[in-house]
Amino acid sequence: MNDAKILIVGSVAFDDVETPAGRRPNSLGGSANYFAVGASHFAPIQLVAVVGEDFPSEHVEALKERGVDLEGLETVSGNTFFWRGRYAADFGDAETLDTQLNVFADFQPKIPQSYQETDYLFLGNIHPALQEEVVDQVKAPKLIGCDTMNFWITGEPEALAKLLKKIDLLVINEGEARLLSGEKHIPKAVEKICAMGPKIIVIKKGSHGAALYHPEGQFFVPAFPLETLKDPTGAGDSFASGLMGYIAQKDSTDLKTFKTALLYGTVMASFACEEFSFDRTIKLTQEEITDRFNALKAMITIED
Amino acid sequence: MNDAKILIVGSVAFDDVETPAGRRPNSLGGSANYFAVGASHFAPIQLVAVVGEDFPSEHVEALKERGVDLEGLETVSGNTFFWRGRYAADFGDAETLDTQLNVFADFQPKIPQSYQETDYLFLGNIHPALQEEVVDQVKAPKLIGCDTMNFWITGEPEALAKLLKKIDLLVINEGEARLLSGEKHIPKAVEKICAMGPKIIVIKKGSHGAALYHPEGQFFVPAFPLETLKDPTGAGDSFASGLMGYIAQKDSTDLKTFKTALLYGTVMASFACEEFSFDRTIKLTQEEITDRFNALKAMITIED
Repeated sequence: MNDAKILIVGSVAFDDVETPAGRRPNSLGGSANYFAVGASHFAPIQLVAVVGEDFPSEHVEALKERGVDLEGLETVSGNTFFWRGRYAADFGDAETLDTQLNVFADFQPKIPQSYQETDYLFLGNIHPALQEEVVDQVKAPKLIGCDTMNFWITGEPEALAKLLKKIDLLVINEGEARLLSGEKHIPKAVEKICAMGPKIIVIKKGSHGAALYHPEGQFFVPAFPLETLKDPTGAGDSFASGLMGYIAQKDSTDLKTFKTALLYGTVMASFACEEFSFDRTIKLTQEEITDRFNALKAMITIED
Repeated sequence: MNDAKILIVGSVAFDDVETPAGRRPNSLGGSANYFAVGASHFAPIQLVAVVGEDFPSEHVEALKERGVDLEGLETVSGNTFFWRGRYAADFGDAETLDTQLNVFADFQPKIPQSYQETDYLFLGNIHPALQEEVVDQVKAPKLIGCDTMNFWITGEPEALAKLLKKIDLLVINEGEARLLSGEKHIPKAVEKICAMGPKIIVIKKGSHGAALYHPEGQFFVPAFPLETLKDPTGAGDSFASGLMGYIAQKDSTDLKTFKTALLYGTVMASFACEEFSFDRTIKLTQEEITDRFNALKAMITIED
């Protein structure tokens, strides 16, 4: 492992999650949380987020144990962001039953001075204007990656357009790519999104895997076939954590690195789904990650 | 190319096809037709099918020019099987507007003696009882592959169950796999289908590629990203033609051969969609096939 660091900005939340596998009323969640837990297996992580006074100190300690730098974790008076959702039998998109922004409503990401020269930056799914504020506070990261969602694509198109000009990598799902570009056909959608700013696009396709569009070439990876699926919450952030984590670990953004990174993203997403919250990803060993990476690689390798 | 032959049994048809790219009222089609045209680029083909007196001699000549053995092509009085369908804007499943079985209604596949020791057999999508009659007329093919569809899975479950015990390879799409197994989760569906007979399953996922479940391992291949999509009719049969074609060419059914065969199937399916009918696949050169194979392989290859 080299010393390249990743700065993650996003949400930290309490989730109340119901899936066909059961219910977890007090599930730790949030994009920055899932990302930090996953990426900490690959590189040193700096975290910027806000929590309320109700946030458990045990989890703060657990993140510290994973080597996550928490100088940027702000604690303010009030309650932590809360989301309640339910997944149907097909484990597709969750139905949101309740959202309480709480302390997240006034979140103004402040990047500590010690984070400003970070090597890699990932913007979790928050308001694009806040994402842009973060970009403007860091000096010259080697790669800026970004997530977003339908809510911002539809509701904040101008702020999003401004942001897209400043990022290098966009990680979104197929539906989001279609909505953002107005193109049904994914290769055409990708072309249009590239023209908006980011030169590298990763399209997440859930159980159908993921596709990479990189200036040097394209690459596809299937999802890892899971026997047990308990909770898909955070799968996308966990995917990004393996992707960005491996890129920082190799300290390279070339096609070869990105291809392997796509596999690590897929591996981390698969682990995330096997248990509620990040129960599985926080406890992973290097050996478990490597074993699943090798199993996935074998499924796309032609020569023996 | 070794001398291993493939026997294809299926339909030969006139199609009236409407897609977002236009309409072709007199499109040559049918599973055996698409398969024979595609697989003729890989191995010697023997064809068993029935046509009416209206069938154009020019196309019979074109198949002969591709080296297809037509001893098993029966011409009887009446009209050739006719299908009319329309694809919506997303090029998903076609809506059937008209089906006229015509001479196909009394089709009883008769395998000429010269075909009975064929090396590889592929059963195009016809009534499972007819598919079984074909199996019973051949001696000891090295691999029996088979296609089917929702119509037979729902309407002829007993005939299909009998047939499945006698085949080695089933090539179906995700929806068919779910319907046949009663399992939503594809890995579980595959497990159940394997218990019904075939030990090798290929799941076609349209624009999401294909998955191979082979006793020696699993393999996934993405769809080839197309710029132009004109007519998806016959894409599944073209996929099977590249898959079976390469297997016969290598005369092997091991995992390594199957992996490469899955890429050739994907390549042939992609060509099929670029023009109406098999306009594109019948004229393909070896170089065009190899170039696209290499482009697809690059999209799943990690090491440079």
